[in-house]
Amino acid sequence: MTSSVSTKTMANALRALAMDAVQKAKSGHPGMPMGMADIAVALWKDHLRHNPKNPKWIGRDRFLLSNGHGSMLQYGLLHLAGYDLSIEDIKNFRQLHSKTPGHPEVGVTAGVETSTGPLGQGIANAVGLALAEKMLAAEFNREGFDIIDNYTYAFLGDGCLMEGISHEVCSLAGVWKLNKLIALYDDNGISIDGDVKNWFHDDTRKRFESYGWNVIGPVDGHDVAAVSQAIEEAKKSDKPTLIDCKTIIGFGSPNRQGTSKAHGEALGEDEITITRKAIGWDYGPFEIPSEVYEAWDARAKGEVEESAWTNLYAKYKEAYPELASELERRLSGQLPADWDDVCFNALLKAVEEEKTVASRKASQMALNALASHLPELVGGSADLTGSNLTNWNGVEALRANNMLGRHINYGVREFGMGAIMNGIALYGGFIPFGATFLTFSDYEKNAMRMAALMKLRTIFVYTHDSIGLGEDGPTHQPIEQLASLRLIPNMDVWRPCDTVETIVAWEAAIEREDGPSSLIFSRQSLPFMEREETNADEIAKGGYILEEAPAGKGAAEVVLLATGSEVSLAAEARKILTAENVQCRLVSMPSTTVFDRQSDSYKEEVLGKDLPIVAMEAASTGLWWKYVKGKGTVIGIDSFGESAPAKELFKMYGFTVDNVVDTIKKTLQKGKN
Amino acid sequence: MTSSVSTKTMANALRALAMDAVQKAKSGHPGMPMGMADIAVALWKDHLRHNPKNPKWIGRDRFLLSNGHGSMLQYGLLHLAGYDLSIEDIKNFRQLHSKTPGHPEVGVTAGVETSTGPLGQGIANAVGLALAEKMLAAEFNREGFDIIDNYTYAFLGDGCLMEGISHEVCSLAGVWKLNKLIALYDDNGISIDGDVKNWFHDDTRKRFESYGWNVIGPVDGHDVAAVSQAIEEAKKSDKPTLIDCKTIIGFGSPNRQGTSKAHGEALGEDEITITRKAIGWDYGPFEIPSEVYEAWDARAKGEVEESAWTNLYAKYKEAYPELASELERRLSGQLPADWDDVCFNALLKAVEEEKTVASRKASQMALNALASHLPELVGGSADLTGSNLTNWNGVEALRANNMLGRHINYGVREFGMGAIMNGIALYGGFIPFGATFLTFSDYEKNAMRMAALMKLRTIFVYTHDSIGLGEDGPTHQPIEQLASLRLIPNMDVWRPCDTVETIVAWEAAIEREDGPSSLIFSRQSLPFMEREETNADEIAKGGYILEEAPAGKGAAEVVLLATGSEVSLAAEARKILTAENVQCRLVSMPSTTVFDRQSDSYKEEVLGKDLPIVAMEAASTGLWWKYVKGKGTVIGIDSFGESAPAKELFKMYGFTVDNVVDTIKKTLQKGKN
Repeated sequence: MTSSVSTKTMANALRALAMDAVQKAKSGHPGMPMGMADIAVALWKDHLRHNPKNPKWIGRDRFLLSNGHGSMLQYGLLHLAGYDLSIEDIKNFRQLHSKTPGHPEVGVTAGVETSTGPLGQGIANAVGLALAEKMLAAEFNREGFDIIDNYTYAFLGDGCLMEGISHEVCSLAGVWKLNKLIALYDDNGISIDGDVKNWFHDDTRKRFESYGWNVIGPVDGHDVAAVSQAIEEAKKSDKPTLIDCKTIIGFGSPNRQGTSKAHGEALGEDEITITRKAIGWDYGPFEIPSEVYEAWDARAKGEVEESAWTNLYAKYKEAYPELASELERRLSGQLPADWDDVCFNALLKAVEEEKTVASRKASQMALNALASHLPELVGGSADLTGSNLTNWNGVEALRANNMLGRHINYGVREFGMGAIMNGIALYGGFIPFGATFLTFSDYEKNAMRMAALMKLRTIFVYTHDSIGLGEDGPTHQPIEQLASLRLIPNMDVWRPCDTVETIVAWEAAIEREDGPSSLIFSRQSLPFMEREETNADEIAKGGYILEEAPAGKGAAEVVLLATGSEVSLAAEARKILTAENVQCRLVSMPSTTVFDRQSDSYKEEVLGKDLPIVAMEAASTGLWWKYVKGKGTVIGIDSFGESAPAKELFKMYGFTVDNVVDTIKKTLQKGKN
Repeated sequence: MTSSVSTKTMANALRALAMDAVQKAKSGHPGMPMGMADIAVALWKDHLRHNPKNPKWIGRDRFLLSNGHGSMLQYGLLHLAGYDLSIEDIKNFRQLHSKTPGHPEVGVTAGVETSTGPLGQGIANAVGLALAEKMLAAEFNREGFDIIDNYTYAFLGDGCLMEGISHEVCSLAGVWKLNKLIALYDDNGISIDGDVKNWFHDDTRKRFESYGWNVIGPVDGHDVAAVSQAIEEAKKSDKPTLIDCKTIIGFGSPNRQGTSKAHGEALGEDEITITRKAIGWDYGPFEIPSEVYEAWDARAKGEVEESAWTNLYAKYKEAYPELASELERRLSGQLPADWDDVCFNALLKAVEEEKTVASRKASQMALNALASHLPELVGGSADLTGSNLTNWNGVEALRANNMLGRHINYGVREFGMGAIMNGIALYGGFIPFGATFLTFSDYEKNAMRMAALMKLRTIFVYTHDSIGLGEDGPTHQPIEQLASLRLIPNMDVWRPCDTVETIVAWEAAIEREDGPSSLIFSRQSLPFMEREETNADEIAKGGYILEEAPAGKGAAEVVLLATGSEVSLAAEARKILTAENVQCRLVSMPSTTVFDRQSDSYKEEVLGKDLPIVAMEAASTGLWWKYVKGKGTVIGIDSFGESAPAKELFKMYGFTVDNVVDTIKKTLQKGKN
């Protein structure tokens, strides 16, 4: 890329687009794009390997903004470099259904690698992307064929570095020696409340050294050559690198630069006018001279880079045809050809064995059956491997010196685990899952939301799903978490009752292509539920009739609706009631979220048209009223748990056969009155 | 405390109690108590100022376990030092309703300062406790009268240090120079998954230096004199101190020490037998010889210490009677004598002014009216002060050199903010509140849960409460958060519709003595709702009839149920329907959680006995079916938002008068069919 256009002018083009777009939208954040423009020039002009014509090229370097409010920087870059993002798109910044939403959104804008905005999670995604690159390279590259070979560049600001998740994930990046992760820190000393020294005086360079990172800087973030040189150095390191770039927020705006006023609002027409003058940008709003476009245009270089890669890949494919076809399958997200058989056999075995085990154990049994046929599966736990039972026969632990390991010890870092898994899923080639206790989904929650928003195949595993965990007490006993997860849009939640439902849940989560799943398992044993016929397809609908009212005794008078550990309780109550000539239908509903997507006729078939329903689940009652409506009742728990043996707790909270039978009778009585 | 009993024997008493209690319960964590026993001896024998006979003495040093799974260490200490915790209580470890639950619970066990278990939050509470001490000291101490003067000691382990929240709060402790906070790090190199080097290789000492802490160590954590000396040094620092104590987990157990096997399960009878031999503890289970009790007994020393303080306080009270009486009021948690008048006047003013403002602005107006009369109020924001509007006229920012400031810039640290607020509330003398955007309650969630579990008067403020925030897009637009917060047991959630409800919500949150509240405010303007009579008492019930069906036109046919920004929408729909002779009752329900506590008769009075209900809220529908039951419907949002101006979004998601009117008509029609 040789050009008579100076790097300063290139940076000013980014500044002008940011100012103008925010001004037109009357909303947005000009401060970061104006402050990081020179850094962006250094990276995009001298280093970033990418092809604007094929934003999905697997060989591309990944670029992301952890400080996502600076979205106009990214849109400016994509537009100028020649991606499918027109000046009209830029003018539509922050408008309904535009390609330029307020924060970057993957799937909406070509070239955007992840959705950011919630601070700290972008750098976490970057750690996941860099880890996935290393893992996939270890698995598929061969001597002379560095097919998987890219850098991950993340921009981040003070906000990301204040967030706790940055600690979790940067510590892990150090452990894993993710040397192809390069983070560029917008060290401008300003956050929304003002000069950060009053609430953020970390020695960040020292902090990152303590994580085992390569730290460069401080560099002048407005000196393109210096930043470019720093990136060059970073590429040579055997550790992840943080480049500390000293910058001025809102650089170029005479009255706002260096102040928090530059951060998150339009500069105003007057200030924009004097800023244009100050930076020497003599063009109108949204006007970019052609020589500047030319200087930025990355298409020709990108095509050359991609075709070099394509040539190499063609030779690789010749030399390693099976490996290449497996890589292609993996990157496409398709499951192995024998997948259906593998699942069917696992199910058959579960049916035959009729095992009474904790569903967390059933989950491990499912993993043992499925994982060896699914090399893309990458498991892990937030330091509870032996409790979550997330490892499987023969799996190795992932280590800095063993990137072929497929079980990750995330340490006690739930939020980091979730957001790193999202990064792995974004890279492709892997299906990540990670576990902790269900209560601690609270720590991980926004990463789950981001997975749902980004429609990622990330699988969140939670064990110890109720007061049934016993003695650890109320801090560890989930009450409201099940409902909270079900409320996340596009999150599928499964709480299976036995070994059979557990396999179906795992299968559904792995097969799901447009969003994440949460799999919820018990600590305590759950009896195997005998079924007249095992219809996995019905289970996969999220809710189904497990036991119809006994034949020949009249239609069902009441529906017992239960999930997980409460299904066997409902079954026992049904037995007693049947003996007393009360006809009960037992519906198992391992996934309300999946059931909600079924047809109205199927729902009616399962729940009845006008039957009283008694729902039971050892958790919050709140969401069950949608199914129960006016006629039935809900047996649940809306207060905190207690520290005691599980059996005593179930008794205390009314989860006994006697109480369930009693409640059902009262409900029927009330309906008759 | 002179005694012939060696410190080693004192530590062994703690080890024996932990082994025996865990063994009897067949559940619990012996590793930490056995590993930290010597550190505990150093602290409790030589330094901790406390009086077992008066665990609430305000002059006491605060002691807490951030690694709360090691609860038996604390129970052992409390028992041996002479607190109200008998050997029978120890034998009941982890049993229902015992004083010795699985993890320490404040309010259950005298001498326990906070509830821990969820890792990282204990050290965050400790930061809050240490901050509150400094703030209260700055306000109430006078020359020669260090009435408020105590250290905060926190034990913590690798797990706490891996958690992101430890980064957030330790960074702040450095900023605030909390020199009376002393953290003792159980550096045993083991976490549940094994040797931490494979997932946690931070240079923790360096990390804490980067936060501006005083770092001591490594010290031999089994050398009582060395640890005691380190604590002595720590007390002299002008910074918070981390003492890095190298320890062996499960110290003394020949076959388990130094391994993760020691962490979380009973040692077993055989291993206990050989451990007793190995450490030279020749006593039976739960047997403590009297000379060991004597060596540990802290009662006499505690009484001397407290009475010295009491004497000083008596003189202080003489010299500063008003200050002393204010301090007593503050510590008792009682509100000022003129509180009711202040609230009444604020309400009166709001009614008179009839202001149409964003409820976040209404909140700031409430703060301006209330805060100057409420010196215990400590506000703050996670770097969104100008958006959350949490500051008020004349309030100063809290700084290391201005501990009289009552507005805290927490930086971008939501979870840390929540858990620090809990620490402040635990100390007493203050009512803390802190704010961020509602979506980011996800980051803070487990701290909210802990506030609810501990019954703390912590106030969580959230602005930008719906798609109404507009252009920032789906990452910033809460959907499921409102419902998720309502699901937390013992959390009161308020979403007021105008200036009047906002004052009532603030009043309720401030007056609530047995739990936290969440106050949810809009970014956009909300019209003032005219009321025939302003009955604050009815609003305070959480739900009330804002507009009954017009008199003389027959009874209400339908109830419109709304909160916050949707109340005015419902009111407009009601006007149109009234003109069309459909009689609507408008119920405003700013707090479902408070409404749920009302009598059945009041609920029926408000919602009707058998009326169809149309609920509307720009958020998840899930929890509204409880009120709507079979007969009505819910207008809500169960998918993610979009980036666009708010007006367009409300239209797109059906929050228009036309759609509401239409939906109500269809609902009534359906009911008639």
